Amino acid sequence: MSHKVTFFPGGLMTEVEDGETVLDAAVAVGAQINSVCGGKGTCTKCLVIIDGPSDSEMGKLSREEYDLGYRIACQTKIRGDVSVFIPEESQISEHQILAAYSGREAGELTPLTVCRRLDLSAPSLEDNRGDLERVVDALEVPSLEVPLPLLRELPQVLREGGWQLSLMLSRWDGSHRLMAIEKGSKSLANYGIAVDIGTTTVVAELVDLNTGKTVAQASDYNRQLVCGEDVLSRIAYAEEKGVGRLNELVRDTVNGLITQLCAERDKRRRFHSGTCDTDISSISVGGNTAMVHMLLGLDPTSIRYAPYISTTNVPPVLPASDIGIRSLPGAPVYCVPGRASYVGGDITADILLSGLHLRDELSLLIDVGTNGEVVLGNKEWIVGCSTSAGPAFEGGEVSCGMRAMGGAIDTIKITETDIDITIIGKKRPRGICGSGLIDLIAQMFLRGYIDKKGRIETASSERVRSSGRGMEFVVHHEAGKRDIAVSDDDIANVIRTKAAIYAGCSVLLQSVDRSFGDIERLYVAGGFGQHIDIDNAQVIGLLPDVPRDRFQFLGNASLGGSKLCLLSENMRAEALDIYRAMTYVDLSSSQAFFDQYSSALFLPHTDMDQFPEVRRRLEAARGQRGRD
Amino acid sequence: MSHKVTFFPGGLMTEVEDGETVLDAAVAVGAQINSVCGGKGTCTKCLVIIDGPSDSEMGKLSREEYDLGYRIACQTKIRGDVSVFIPEESQISEHQILAAYSGREAGELTPLTVCRRLDLSAPSLEDNRGDLERVVDALEVPSLEVPLPLLRELPQVLREGGWQLSLMLSRWDGSHRLMAIEKGSKSLANYGIAVDIGTTTVVAELVDLNTGKTVAQASDYNRQLVCGEDVLSRIAYAEEKGVGRLNELVRDTVNGLITQLCAERDKRRRFHSGTCDTDISSISVGGNTAMVHMLLGLDPTSIRYAPYISTTNVPPVLPASDIGIRSLPGAPVYCVPGRASYVGGDITADILLSGLHLRDELSLLIDVGTNGEVVLGNKEWIVGCSTSAGPAFEGGEVSCGMRAMGGAIDTIKITETDIDITIIGKKRPRGICGSGLIDLIAQMFLRGYIDKKGRIETASSERVRSSGRGMEFVVHHEAGKRDIAVSDDDIANVIRTKAAIYAGCSVLLQSVDRSFGDIERLYVAGGFGQHIDIDNAQVIGLLPDVPRDRFQFLGNASLGGSKLCLLSENMRAEALDIYRAMTYVDLSSSQAFFDQYSSALFLPHTDMDQFPEVRRRLEAARGQRGRD
Repeated sequence: MSHKVTFFPGGLMTEVEDGETVLDAAVAVGAQINSVCGGKGTCTKCLVIIDGPSDSEMGKLSREEYDLGYRIACQTKIRGDVSVFIPEESQISEHQILAAYSGREAGELTPLTVCRRLDLSAPSLEDNRGDLERVVDALEVPSLEVPLPLLRELPQVLREGGWQLSLMLSRWDGSHRLMAIEKGSKSLANYGIAVDIGTTTVVAELVDLNTGKTVAQASDYNRQLVCGEDVLSRIAYAEEKGVGRLNELVRDTVNGLITQLCAERDKRRRFHSGTCDTDISSISVGGNTAMVHMLLGLDPTSIRYAPYISTTNVPPVLPASDIGIRSLPGAPVYCVPGRASYVGGDITADILLSGLHLRDELSLLIDVGTNGEVVLGNKEWIVGCSTSAGPAFEGGEVSCGMRAMGGAIDTIKITETDIDITIIGKKRPRGICGSGLIDLIAQMFLRGYIDKKGRIETASSERVRSSGRGMEFVVHHEAGKRDIAVSDDDIANVIRTKAAIYAGCSVLLQSVDRSFGDIERLYVAGGFGQHIDIDNAQVIGLLPDVPRDRFQFLGNASLGGSKLCLLSENMRAEALDIYRAMTYVDLSSSQAFFDQYSSALFLPHTDMDQFPEVRRRLEAARGQRGRD
Repeated sequence: MSHKVTFFPGGLMTEVEDGETVLDAAVAVGAQINSVCGGKGTCTKCLVIIDGPSDSEMGKLSREEYDLGYRIACQTKIRGDVSVFIPEESQISEHQILAAYSGREAGELTPLTVCRRLDLSAPSLEDNRGDLERVVDALEVPSLEVPLPLLRELPQVLREGGWQLSLMLSRWDGSHRLMAIEKGSKSLANYGIAVDIGTTTVVAELVDLNTGKTVAQASDYNRQLVCGEDVLSRIAYAEEKGVGRLNELVRDTVNGLITQLCAERDKRRRFHSGTCDTDISSISVGGNTAMVHMLLGLDPTSIRYAPYISTTNVPPVLPASDIGIRSLPGAPVYCVPGRASYVGGDITADILLSGLHLRDELSLLIDVGTNGEVVLGNKEWIVGCSTSAGPAFEGGEVSCGMRAMGGAIDTIKITETDIDITIIGKKRPRGICGSGLIDLIAQMFLRGYIDKKGRIETASSERVRSSGRGMEFVVHHEAGKRDIAVSDDDIANVIRTKAAIYAGCSVLLQSVDRSFGDIERLYVAGGFGQHIDIDNAQVIGLLPDVPRDRFQFLGNASLGGSKLCLLSENMRAEALDIYRAMTYVDLSSSQAFFDQYSSALFLPHTDMDQFPEVRRRLEAARGQRGRD
């Protein structure tokens, strides 16, 4: 027996079998519902309101919420035709996705695909080389792979073009492949896509490979979000249901962006070509290991279990048509190589963009996205680790947490009399994103509303109150809406996340017998890094207490590094060098990490000597409070 | 309006549109009818007997033949349902196809595809390489192309096999590709096909690439024969009707042989695997340029017109699945490179098998097949040409001529009192094949039945008689059958063919300022060479008057050379070296060739100094006749 399910707003409709969950139905039809835990019923982010026959348990909902009609989509079985309303807080809405980056330039233009124009001598009895040999000789390439359909076309194209030929070549692994031919000598369209496939967001650039210039940028949520928010949830989803749906969702996301980018380009050039299937000639992908697996349809299961082995960290270049990416048939898809299952190609791309692997100075690179990866190194060596930081800064495991999208409180300033907040998209506030949480906790700490362990001090502020879940601090109150407030538990989760990242840095330094004072350059990569207040991040002990002038923000370095690889053979060689140079430090079984983590579960840290500047500020703040 | 056509013997049936020719119908249904001219009505080899409504002109048939019910299949239009009988002389029947060869051995075993067995260390936290990287490292290859389906399978295959893996790799152009994987350490079946695609015949060998040993041999006519006998007729057919049908026919011929070979192997091993689609892992093709074009579906038209340019002389290695050859998906198809449109990969294979390109001694190589190619060279240089010899030695342009198949008179000895003949297949004689024609003309010349110009001397023998086409010499008479006889015209055609070949040799020698006396080694390649009597061939001036101990017969050297390439990377490199080393001499526009050709239009030659031994024999024979 099957039932009809309609999602609102939008009106997307699908049919499901009796007993399937609302989240299953949403995944099937592509309705965008928040889901952090991937369907386990633990995150309660997938709240929906259901009209029609269904079975549901209250689960982690409050009685009040349940009575108001809220249901947890992943815990609700459909028993008849239903309409499902997705409330704003459960929608994946307009967002603040970072596409900008800054760092090294590609230099030479030796992209994955190049156009060539040949003006050949006509054959004669004296010069009777075959058509293909004439072309290969003129190209001066050692060998050329030629697809049979192009070889079949070649004689006519050469003769009709009067021995002038325009062609497109791809090159990787030192060998060349013919991708397209046209008669005559002309400039062929040659566009590449650089893409950063994040667990949460996907950002793509359309690059004119003839000039190396970016033509357009586009970004979107990773449609896999309906299968769980963090990497582990996605892998669990793949383990249970196969990688197929995840593969489809990320491919659809990428193809959606390619379509957008081509439309944007055509709009600017004022012509309608509609040819993204025919003139996207190469693709370079920066992504974490799990995302790359899902893009390629590789089973990511073994990434999840010790010893955390991927199918490949250095994926072979594959034709886009095999993967199902919109482009010329045979367009090469290059994935930036990653070092390990949890230090993926996105981190290699970060390093590449930073250039830390080329310099003498000791650099620390921190990429806080859905995971938190840390790299330490110079031109001699690189060590890297992943901290399994948890999604606190992306809205997970914090009751009022949310991603940096419309309605998120992204900066907070606690003044003498009030709280000043800014909200993304100037909408009604719905929650607090990572940068807001850092501001909030740092300032609560400076003002003495929480102690070193992050526990809220009773009666330290009018905004502190007791609730069913212990003490909480109200950030925003609006009549008729749920208050936006942080609890002891929320703060503890943020502290665990920041402690993991800081401990990762500590372990890497320890592993090479250095200290934080030795860091000459501190790179911050990722969307999150771009928006945080460094002072506040140092106050809570997320970022080390390194002088401000040593900080460098890379922005979306995974995108930037992947573009470098799209454009330059040297960069692709460097990416491989980075892969080979890096030592991966596994923290999951590391006693040193556990020790460092425990020491970091304080604000900012148990060892205040590591935070001299923060100590100074704390003392100043305490003095201020004393004077008040 | 369509009509039903049934061919006998065999009963093959097809439907054709009104007005199509009987030959068209035969081509469509695959009925094997002789056709030398490819449907122009000039060769009258496609005689059939038709029962049913049809339009036909007498054309080149005699009144007697016409009245007996014979029709020329290519000149007969079908006007209703008909039965078509293919008489024995028009059938492509059991034949004498040369598969044997002798020459160099491959030496090292580095075939196009190799099996490897890996016993990998299991991954650990310390050794966390990805599955693919673990495999690539163990293979010690610089890079590996991996098809996505195999990459997707790899993790499970590795884990189920306890980190033991068996795999098949192909390698060419210095890069490696993964073709198959199986769990555990086992010896994978790894069979290759070496094939000689001749214009007339196709011979294939099944080779166990794990040992380098030939397992089985099979041969067949090239099914393209229904589209014309010689290369130019086939190209004309392609020009008129497209290359598609020719492509299908040669592919079907090759696939038929592969099926036969696999069946033969399975019979010997007493198991039924029926897996030629799954364990033929590579294919090496020796063939002339036109045949290779047709196999790959490349338009051969430009080969036919000056300056005779092919699409490619060095075809890229292509996956068998693209070409439609039965084998593992992705099995590489390698074609031995050729030097020019009329000195193709078959000649490179000849040279490779001979090894003349490696030695100091001056060697001449003659390959008389459907064409006649000549090569001269040593380890410093190679020159080569094609003589457009014409098909006289293959049964064309000679009234009683036929290919070396069942019923062909293949040796002739004129004694004092009679003629002793041998017949292929011990059947009733139907005609004379090339070796028989050489014997016949040489002995007629020695006995004074023909003069130096090849004209039959009136009353020189009881077998000489006048006919509608001038003088003729009756070789075989049988009551109620057409006599087998040669005419002045027939002999003139043979002389033109032998003159072209000899002139080719002369021009090459002249081009490097050498003479026949300098030839230290004379290689004879091709099926024809294997069966001729050297003495007789020298008497008519087909082969140069070089001492007998300098002759070396290579047999089917195209097959032998293609097997060398199947087995060894060095041999493939040598083949490319030969391609690069060879200078092609075009005879079509050469005054030197025309002069030499004119001088060679005599028996054995105008310049008797070039034939000292033949002169001695002629003088002895004249003396004998004088004494008689």
